Amino acid sequence: MLYSREEMLEMNIKLLIERTVTVEDIAEVAYRQQSKWSDAITMEQCVESVMKILSYRDVFHLLQLGVEIDRLAEEGIIREPMRSVLQKDFGMFGIDELFGLEIAGKYGTIGKTNFGDIDVNKPLVVDRLNADGKEAGKMCHTFLDDIVGAIAAAASTRVAQMNKELEAADDPTVKKIRLELDLD
Amino acid sequence: MLYSREEMLEMNIKLLIERTVTVEDIAEVAYRQQSKWSDAITMEQCVESVMKILSYRDVFHLLQLGVEIDRLAEEGIIREPMRSVLQKDFGMFGIDELFGLEIAGKYGTIGKTNFGDIDVNKPLVVDRLNADGKEAGKMCHTFLDDIVGAIAAAASTRVAQMNKELEAADDPTVKKIRLELDLD
Amino acid sequence: MLYSREEMLEMNIKLLIERTVTVEDIAEVAYRQQSKWSDAITMEQCVESVMKILSYRDVFHLLQLGVEIDRLAEEGIIREPMRSVLQKDFGMFGIDELFGLEIAGKYGTIGKTNFGDIDVNKPLVVDRLNADGKEAGKMCHTFLDDIVGAIAAAASTRVAQMNKELEAADDPTVKKIRLELDLD
Amino acid sequence: MLYSREEMLEMNIKLLIERTVTVEDIAEVAYRQQSKWSDAITMEQCVESVMKILSYRDVFHLLQLGVEIDRLAEEGIIREPMRSVLQKDFGMFGIDELFGLEIAGKYGTIGKTNFGDIDVNKPLVVDRLNADGKEAGKMCHTFLDDIVGAIAAAASTRVAQMNKELEAADDPTVKKIRLELDLD
Repeated sequence: MLYSREEMLEMNIKLLIERTVTVEDIAEVAYRQQSKWSDAITMEQCVESVMKILSYRDVFHLLQLGVEIDRLAEEGIIREPMRSVLQKDFGMFGIDELFGLEIAGKYGTIGKTNFGDIDVNKPLVVDRLNADGKEAGKMCHTFLDDIVGAIAAAASTRVAQMNKELEAADDPTVKKIRLELDLD
Repeated sequence: MLYSREEMLEMNIKLLIERTVTVEDIAEVAYRQQSKWSDAITMEQCVESVMKILSYRDVFHLLQLGVEIDRLAEEGIIREPMRSVLQKDFGMFGIDELFGLEIAGKYGTIGKTNFGDIDVNKPLVVDRLNADGKEAGKMCHTFLDDIVGAIAAAASTRVAQMNKELEAADDPTVKKIRLELDLD
Repeated sequence: MLYSREEMLEMNIKLLIERTVTVEDIAEVAYRQQSKWSDAITMEQCVESVMKILSYRDVFHLLQLGVEIDRLAEEGIIREPMRSVLQKDFGMFGIDELFGLEIAGKYGTIGKTNFGDIDVNKPLVVDRLNADGKEAGKMCHTFLDDIVGAIAAAASTRVAQMNKELEAADDPTVKKIRLELDLD
Repeated sequence: MLYSREEMLEMNIKLLIERTVTVEDIAEVAYRQQSKWSDAITMEQCVESVMKILSYRDVFHLLQLGVEIDRLAEEGIIREPMRSVLQKDFGMFGIDELFGLEIAGKYGTIGKTNFGDIDVNKPLVVDRLNADGKEAGKMCHTFLDDIVGAIAAAASTRVAQMNKELEAADDPTVKKIRLELDLD
């Protein structure tokens, strides 16, 4: 059960692809959120951050269990009353957001508010997953759309923090600054 | 999907009994935690608080989904890698605590710390569920022990707050106090 | 210290007005967020929900302490290093969002994501407070803009839940539904 | 405002000493909590983990602001109604626990439940701070006791995770395991 980070990253990427999502899809959401505030953001930074986040043990557990719940709901294996709640992505069900907040919270309270923005406004792949999930006979993405949005929010927050520290390092008035590229 | 509070309470009590837990089992944990601090606590208050908490919509979702995950793990239906993680209640898996913190957090941050105490020290029924879950061939209670502990912590916190407000109402120096028996 | 709900509501409204914010300002933010999804929302519901939220004990503590920190930063009484962090609303400071998430979380994880949307996109009074706070010599609103946004998000979430329950009650296929106007 | 990790660690240690707490005091609480479960834990690991946690930016903000609030309450500078609430460490005030949960949550939900155990059962320095804070005319430690307990819980959780990964690396049945000594 104690997978290495490389194994967890690999298993997560494989599962996301099975569910129609790529690392680039997620990085684009992060890029769109953060490029509003700064020109210094690059897609490369966003891709690298998404990969980093996909290698964490708690993200591994949340992604693997969340998608497994989606699959069991999709196949009608989960019993009532939860089957209908999950299949219809019932508006007052909030455990998918709970998974999302826990992932995004790896980058603090600002990670969480960035997730809220993505969850409410549904950019790009988040919108597609949400729409697919609501179409009858299609896949159930009740958990996946929140998990994908949360990984994007975490990546967006990580890139913003990294770039602020890089700027500070260029600033001659800041002394003794240590590059903290790996903030986490 | 929009069950009434009475329906949710009834469905929760039924499911708990299927999983060997009674309302009184949970109330005893709340009573033990809170009676250390005050003589004014009664078992009746604890039972009433447990019933109240079991009627909330988000507690309904967390309890019903958590126990369903336990059952699917028990029956070997959940796929790897999560099956082994759940069946063995892997020490670095924390989504069961996430469910618990969300339930206990209905009574604020003090609800959450009270849950931490119960989760670590495992009194009464929490200990039994945890032990049963670890025995080979027995039921899987990875989620249930945390959920039960969290309902107890929420009840314990609710009773403490109620009694503080009742005391204040008896105190002649406190004016204009309104009984807030239903704090939430 | 054990104020009644009426006293806490009154003290909160008075303090908000001292800091240039009215109950209606907050209700407008809630109304704007929720009226996107449903025509059934009214300003009256939003005002009533804001008042309800302002009467809770933990919201009272978070609002009173948050605004007191703003005032002490404004007057230069808070010592370094926190004085500069607070006066300039430093982008990597997240304790103001922590206060906001705790308030909005009274209405569950959906309350929290609704707060994230408001915090990132800054509608109406939230934008004004944020702008005033950043202007040299003006008031420090580092905590207040998040607290106000969070009360609006909580009110918006409460109104949405209330209206879903009201709809269900009108639906003849739903039996035994109990109006849960007070979602507490 | 963008201090380096070394600067933040140094400022945090200095402030803790001003408030009568040493790194070793905190490491002892972590050691006591974790040595119950495993013989492999050492005080050196606990000290190293406390230092690591004291170097994080969000812990820096929470510790510096929390202690500043304690000092302002102690000196009577904070206005009513919060002055009395803070000076008397009012039982229904939970913002100190909010700070603690945010610190401990850096090590996930298990960090938070470990904090709950320490917060309720008050071992060693946490008990001393709590008692000192309640004595008339002494220091106000309303925030500090929770912050110190949370740093200990975070350190205890980090050491436990590190040691599990070290054990796994020694286990010949585990392949491809990568030492993740620095989990964060």
